[in-house]
Amino acid sequence: MKTQVLLENIQVSDLFESLSSAQKRLVLHVFSETLRALTSSFLRRGFTWLLPVVTSKATDPLWPDPVASIEARPELELYGERVRLTQSMILHKQLLVAAGYEKVFVLSPNVRVERRDRAKTGRHAYEFTQLDFEVKGAKREDIFRLVEGVLSEVVEHLEECCEKQLLELGAELEKFRAPFKVYRMKELEEKYGPDWETLASIESSEPFWVTDIPREFYDYEDLERGEWHNYDLILPEGYGEVLSGAEREWQYDKIAYKMRRDGVSMDSYRYYLELAKRGVLVPSAGAGIGVERLVLWLTKRSHIAEVQPFPRIPGIVTPL
Amino acid sequence: MKTQVLLENIQVSDLFESLSSAQKRLVLHVFSETLRALTSSFLRRGFTWLLPVVTSKATDPLWPDPVASIEARPELELYGERVRLTQSMILHKQLLVAAGYEKVFVLSPNVRVERRDRAKTGRHAYEFTQLDFEVKGAKREDIFRLVEGVLSEVVEHLEECCEKQLLELGAELEKFRAPFKVYRMKELEEKYGPDWETLASIESSEPFWVTDIPREFYDYEDLERGEWHNYDLILPEGYGEVLSGAEREWQYDKIAYKMRRDGVSMDSYRYYLELAKRGVLVPSAGAGIGVERLVLWLTKRSHIAEVQPFPRIPGIVTPL
Repeated sequence: MKTQVLLENIQVSDLFESLSSAQKRLVLHVFSETLRALTSSFLRRGFTWLLPVVTSKATDPLWPDPVASIEARPELELYGERVRLTQSMILHKQLLVAAGYEKVFVLSPNVRVERRDRAKTGRHAYEFTQLDFEVKGAKREDIFRLVEGVLSEVVEHLEECCEKQLLELGAELEKFRAPFKVYRMKELEEKYGPDWETLASIESSEPFWVTDIPREFYDYEDLERGEWHNYDLILPEGYGEVLSGAEREWQYDKIAYKMRRDGVSMDSYRYYLELAKRGVLVPSAGAGIGVERLVLWLTKRSHIAEVQPFPRIPGIVTPL
Repeated sequence: MKTQVLLENIQVSDLFESLSSAQKRLVLHVFSETLRALTSSFLRRGFTWLLPVVTSKATDPLWPDPVASIEARPELELYGERVRLTQSMILHKQLLVAAGYEKVFVLSPNVRVERRDRAKTGRHAYEFTQLDFEVKGAKREDIFRLVEGVLSEVVEHLEECCEKQLLELGAELEKFRAPFKVYRMKELEEKYGPDWETLASIESSEPFWVTDIPREFYDYEDLERGEWHNYDLILPEGYGEVLSGAEREWQYDKIAYKMRRDGVSMDSYRYYLELAKRGVLVPSAGAGIGVERLVLWLTKRSHIAEVQPFPRIPGIVTPL
């Protein structure tokens, strides 16, 4: 796969050539088996599998809003109303958990118009899929154990089904020991500076958790201790973040206070606020697993275009 | 579930109430198990599971183009280029099969802005998911046997896992005998008139195939015999069409002839034509299974809103 070529322009003939390559066929075989293992693993744990939404009047505006990593939030009109493409199903998941779906997951395609220079990171795509899940009443540590269990099962499954393919790809499966190490973001920032995610990932040989990350108001914050109950899972060898999640806020007063404090538009979240005000939200925790990034790591590729059949590289709109 | 209420307007409180209802919880449990059974069944048959695309420069414009069942084809701009939301991954599937993926499937969310009066059919939604699959070198009959096998496995699985839920829903699982009956569209049209799909579905107690349906140029047509090698699967009891598919055209000259004959814009299909002209397309057959419609039938509900956690009824844009 000529990533260099793909970074410049994609013709339909390039697309066909890349899809036909022996390497891409190996990668997509592993991808398919990863989807099988991931969904089986969540189902075995009693999760309900639901289908995603593509358009929504209320989707996660992402944080921090004014940051320039997202170039645009395309809107379109459906039946005279403005809707957005799903950037994350976080609000939907909170509603589901509140409505009594105690463990849910969705394979959710997300559209995020990442800044064009992010094409070079090899880790960003303007369309990608999250395995987005949520668990009623769960705490940070419950999610850590859950995800460690799921990842172990995925790796075990790939060892059984895909030994040959992984060998041909030169991709050796990680032997990792659970539980993974846990760091506070501040520790890593002190040690590595603002680019801690990349640097700590490069230095590590195993996945690790990062917690206490100041971000969206809906992530649970212990205001007294000044501590955020959220987390990212960082892959080793420079593969970086593959999962982002949190315990959630559910109390109206606290949510409204944090939105005012952070200057977040109440109107963007009016449906969520309406539910919070009615007192129906409940404590939960969850996360979204970046499926392409997981496969990127498992197959030891260097660019996300190598694991997408129809690459979605920032700034480069594929013909198909 | 108050379908009547939902047909008029959906407030976030209605959405929450409907999601929380015992009935919806039962339905979504069956939905989850249907997804498990469908994906397992295709994987067991050696299919590669790939992820969908949400936006595309070339998506199926659907047929017949001037028909008024689709109200709009919303476009949006990504990095200065116009893209559409996926209406079907037919072109992507032909490219995949041509590139050597002999059996592929995708759980593909489709956005089709159906005319508002289609809200009343109970069978249309402006967002729904197709299990879209394609098999290299397959013929019509191969797809019939494949789908009959998959549906039998889905029903067997639900009998094991969901007996209690289906009983509470008053939904008795169909005992159907494969192979299903096969009719030519003309026979049905002669017997039932233009509304043959609904009428024949109401009269039938088992699913049946309909073949030889004049439609899109990419469906294989035997020009000498004037016969189309395509098919729909019609569910009994008025549930109507749940699957649409065909053997495909792959030869440039014939495709170009049919496009000219049918007055189809060459420009909309330029990528597809480019591949056909290079001679890389191959014979294949496939179909898309409407997953919500399948569950509608399995759970014996009367409106598609009853099987979607976030209903997507034509003309009624849900808050979330």
